[in-house]
Amino acid sequence: MTQSTPSKLAMVPFVSVDNMMEIIGKIGLEELLAELASYIESDFKRWEQFDKTPRVAAHSEEGVIELMPTSDGEVYGFKYVNGHPKNQQEGYQTVTAFGVLADVSNGYPVLFSEMTILTALRTAATSALVAKYLAPKNAKTMALIGNGAQCEFQAIAFKAICGIDTVKLYDIDGRATKKVVRNLANQGIEAIACGSSEDAIAGAQIITTCTADKQYATILSDNMVGSGVHINAIGGDCPGKTELHRHLHR
Amino acid sequence: MTQSTPSKLAMVPFVSVDNMMEIIGKIGLEELLAELASYIESDFKRWEQFDKTPRVAAHSEEGVIELMPTSDGEVYGFKYVNGHPKNQQEGYQTVTAFGVLADVSNGYPVLFSEMTILTALRTAATSALVAKYLAPKNAKTMALIGNGAQCEFQAIAFKAICGIDTVKLYDIDGRATKKVVRNLANQGIEAIACGSSEDAIAGAQIITTCTADKQYATILSDNMVGSGVHINAIGGDCPGKTELHRHLHR
Repeated sequence: MTQSTPSKLAMVPFVSVDNMMEIIGKIGLEELLAELASYIESDFKRWEQFDKTPRVAAHSEEGVIELMPTSDGEVYGFKYVNGHPKNQQEGYQTVTAFGVLADVSNGYPVLFSEMTILTALRTAATSALVAKYLAPKNAKTMALIGNGAQCEFQAIAFKAICGIDTVKLYDIDGRATKKVVRNLANQGIEAIACGSSEDAIAGAQIITTCTADKQYATILSDNMVGSGVHINAIGGDCPGKTELHRHLHR
Repeated sequence: MTQSTPSKLAMVPFVSVDNMMEIIGKIGLEELLAELASYIESDFKRWEQFDKTPRVAAHSEEGVIELMPTSDGEVYGFKYVNGHPKNQQEGYQTVTAFGVLADVSNGYPVLFSEMTILTALRTAATSALVAKYLAPKNAKTMALIGNGAQCEFQAIAFKAICGIDTVKLYDIDGRATKKVVRNLANQGIEAIACGSSEDAIAGAQIITTCTADKQYATILSDNMVGSGVHINAIGGDCPGKTELHRHLHR
């Protein structure tokens, strides 16, 4: 109970959203995504070292709040992340996240970081990493269905890691699509706004769906998708958040 | 990807250890423990409203790191807490904690707080609250076995909530006991250092054990404890962290 100034041992470095934007600006987004993908790839290669505790989700009508802990025996990390599709209407973001890295040997946090941007980067880097192995070689065109903030990161990661140069965009909200076209124009990616999912996927070797609603939606159905196309469905990560028809097979 | 100053909506108030000490200083420790106990009591009375997700523990040889999430449907909270008994030898604390409170309706954190001190306070307040209902009426003397930082909070909570005026202390490390005797002298509690567990529990109506090691220890055995004594064993909260002999019944 003796009151005193906190020990230096109790100080934890903090990476804010501003800091993260600065880091991205310094490294460059494409370079950062490519480096991130190689870290992720090397972590997949030592998969057995990780604690595979499932995420802990608290579901509500409006959305979900999740804790995602893991450890490799030396460091421990967890992410807090929410998913609330209706947030956007009230000026909030659909997904926000932060996380902590800790030292397993003494349990002390060693880093506290924003993970809203990191989550977007990690998701995009992982998607592109998977496509590097599974998508048709020399794929140049990707359909992007669902044009929220995440789809821009997807486009840039697929450019950096898989060589995609053209994206075909569709969203039920045309304003979202317009915003993405505008933003991607500065990134050296040809972005084409399409009037339907069918239009968007025509001629694409990769289809990325990034939607977030718990609507038991079917974004892609069986007869829409040709043989050999790589599907990257990233939105559906909990009950009700569906994107693909259940008859859709590779 | 548009860079901008973070929105006001993204700002989360932070309660540091310093802030927490200031709050305690302002309210007074005994008053704060009593108020905390009444909040805890009213929460126990609406037990069915809470999500009872079990804590998520990452065990290692040195200790444990745990996430403890819960929600009442309106607010969501989780605590990060570690337990590393050997930390003390290296200048670190055995237990440190922090936590976040969030709005279930949009998933946004609304408060980020230190919980190292809060954990000590909550544990002490809950112990005393339980004893208020289960311990012998008019108990005045409590044995405190294990004289780390937590035992001081226990003593003060039992004074504030149960009217304990005398504590009898024992620890395998005599220096720990001396420190507690010194600190409690200023709190209006008669603190008596004892040479053994047996000495400490003689004449006590309440026995509190607060030890933290994963040693499968037996702090209290069957033949040590008289009938009607209230046992408050707070250290054992995961495999290996035992305090009571398995033959010990009330």
